[in-house]
Amino acid sequence: LPDAGSRIAVVGVGLIGGSIALAARERLGAAVTGYDLSAAALEAAIERGALDRPAESVPAAVGDAEAVFVAVPVGSLGDALAQVLAAAPSDCVISDVGSTKRAIVAACEDPRFVGGHPLAGAETSGVEQARADLFDEATWYLTPRPTTSGILYERLHRLLRTLGARPAAIDPETHDAILAIVSHLPHVLANVLVAQAGRVLAAGGERLPATGPSFRDATRVAGSSSAVWTDIYVSNGDAVAAALDRTIDELTAVREALGRGDGEWITTWNEHAADERRRLVEAQLSGGRLSELRASVPNRPGVIAQLALELGRDGVNIADMALYPAPDMSHGVVALWIAGEEQAARAQSRLVGLGFQVVRA
Amino acid sequence: LPDAGSRIAVVGVGLIGGSIALAARERLGAAVTGYDLSAAALEAAIERGALDRPAESVPAAVGDAEAVFVAVPVGSLGDALAQVLAAAPSDCVISDVGSTKRAIVAACEDPRFVGGHPLAGAETSGVEQARADLFDEATWYLTPRPTTSGILYERLHRLLRTLGARPAAIDPETHDAILAIVSHLPHVLANVLVAQAGRVLAAGGERLPATGPSFRDATRVAGSSSAVWTDIYVSNGDAVAAALDRTIDELTAVREALGRGDGEWITTWNEHAADERRRLVEAQLSGGRLSELRASVPNRPGVIAQLALELGRDGVNIADMALYPAPDMSHGVVALWIAGEEQAARAQSRLVGLGFQVVRA
Repeated sequence: LPDAGSRIAVVGVGLIGGSIALAARERLGAAVTGYDLSAAALEAAIERGALDRPAESVPAAVGDAEAVFVAVPVGSLGDALAQVLAAAPSDCVISDVGSTKRAIVAACEDPRFVGGHPLAGAETSGVEQARADLFDEATWYLTPRPTTSGILYERLHRLLRTLGARPAAIDPETHDAILAIVSHLPHVLANVLVAQAGRVLAAGGERLPATGPSFRDATRVAGSSSAVWTDIYVSNGDAVAAALDRTIDELTAVREALGRGDGEWITTWNEHAADERRRLVEAQLSGGRLSELRASVPNRPGVIAQLALELGRDGVNIADMALYPAPDMSHGVVALWIAGEEQAARAQSRLVGLGFQVVRA
Repeated sequence: LPDAGSRIAVVGVGLIGGSIALAARERLGAAVTGYDLSAAALEAAIERGALDRPAESVPAAVGDAEAVFVAVPVGSLGDALAQVLAAAPSDCVISDVGSTKRAIVAACEDPRFVGGHPLAGAETSGVEQARADLFDEATWYLTPRPTTSGILYERLHRLLRTLGARPAAIDPETHDAILAIVSHLPHVLANVLVAQAGRVLAAGGERLPATGPSFRDATRVAGSSSAVWTDIYVSNGDAVAAALDRTIDELTAVREALGRGDGEWITTWNEHAADERRRLVEAQLSGGRLSELRASVPNRPGVIAQLALELGRDGVNIADMALYPAPDMSHGVVALWIAGEEQAARAQSRLVGLGFQVVRA
């Protein structure tokens, strides 16, 4: 590997920023600088061993970085990102970790920026909870655009692999629609569940509603940090509202079936859920031996982003990637490692369909 | 201890029945007989080491038992219990493990019967998944009635402690209302979540909606066995419907706030959930040193049930109990072990208020 990401900056050193910093130091031997609006958070990050050097400003943190992670709440992201873009070097890759992606991606066409979102760290917050292994095997969504530098995208992809994550390219609209359902909706439902249990606690005097495993699992994320979550809900408001509409419709149907005492309907509905769960679990278990594909790609903007997005759309998980530019930079070879024979074959035929020359290495 | 429960029968050897059998053999050295309508399940239970002896009928299983657990789906419970009551000895305690309690308790006034419900084993089913430690630290609700034999109630309480559980007396109405919220509602919501994720999977072609920890936690119980759950939903239909009505109301309010982009409302709502979660977690962590209370009780039917129910209503967790009848059986002493100074004091004052003589041992 070239010196990918040996100087890393983290702007915002909470749970996610702190965990990136810890992992980058431990696993990459990177020199990590950090900045946070809160002097107390910065001090805690130093104490936690997450930073080599605290910085007094955004420019001081990112001035000579090779990779920058902006890990601030979604509502502050626009401002923080603008400061980073103004101060970071021209060959520095810049990403964020925000839970919604449409707004920030639409606002930023800089070729150095790749929107990002690791699926990790739901339950806690604060650098005190940061861990170097937080991202192990976690999906880390990336939202490259046609304007994104392919070289910087590849650097970020490899850096995230080193942090333990599985990068997956996705377009911002699909990302936000999916996250509305697999993350924002579960958070809303967890909040509703604890509110109802609280009502039982209040109505029952001192009686504690002893709870089983299903309740504990379903409410682990209830009342997650408002500093983080209000921004998420509001910035993805339309997608979450659509998910809530469908949820309300389905709950109304269940409620009506219960009103009728209609066990047959309930069984059909429950079996459907069992099928869906099986399908989801099977889809997530897809793995297998790594195959290496090598595709020749022209040196034009956006080609790496396009390739990553198309494969992501096909459900192909790029376990690892590497770019080998030709000496005259007119074209290059991108090597892709894909898990599972079936996925590798699908990736190959998709790449051929896109007009790339592909060989199995 | 007297020979409490050294001969145990289990009718229905699925996950729960099988785990009771395993725990009774391992921890109590009990001789366990078992019966199941399914010959295959009975054979699997033998293979799993859960039974000393398979029985060919309910009477053969329970004929000389000191304690019987009827661990069949809620819909078959009435029939199975009637068979057990007809065949079990007069000094045998009989309990069930059904997830809803109003119907079965209303249907059975036999002094030998105590309704029960362990909060454990949500995710799997079948005796293959049975474990001797399934009930460790799990709340095990008991629903004694005034007609319940105090001696048999105490035997069951101690037996459940030996299995690792925390017995807690509760009236059937409160039980069903609480369970509608802490168990049945989370199961409904898990089903709705996977259905929505499945829709994304279908709409996105091959794209798998990579899911984070909150989704995995919230959907672990989706599509649980219909053989078990249809009966539960239907038998607790009114309480689940009421919980769904409140859920739909709250989701509608959230949806409207998102439509307005009302971050302030969202924050207030989320903070409320955070407070409720904190309250629930704190309530569940209440523990502390065990205190022993000894109450003199008259020998009249229902006194032990009353005492257990009153303390349960006050949120007092009876860690352990023992009954010491006077030689002439005119009265007795019940010893109660209560965790935590505050709970012990509350229990003492409640028992005094009920007219019992109480000493702290």
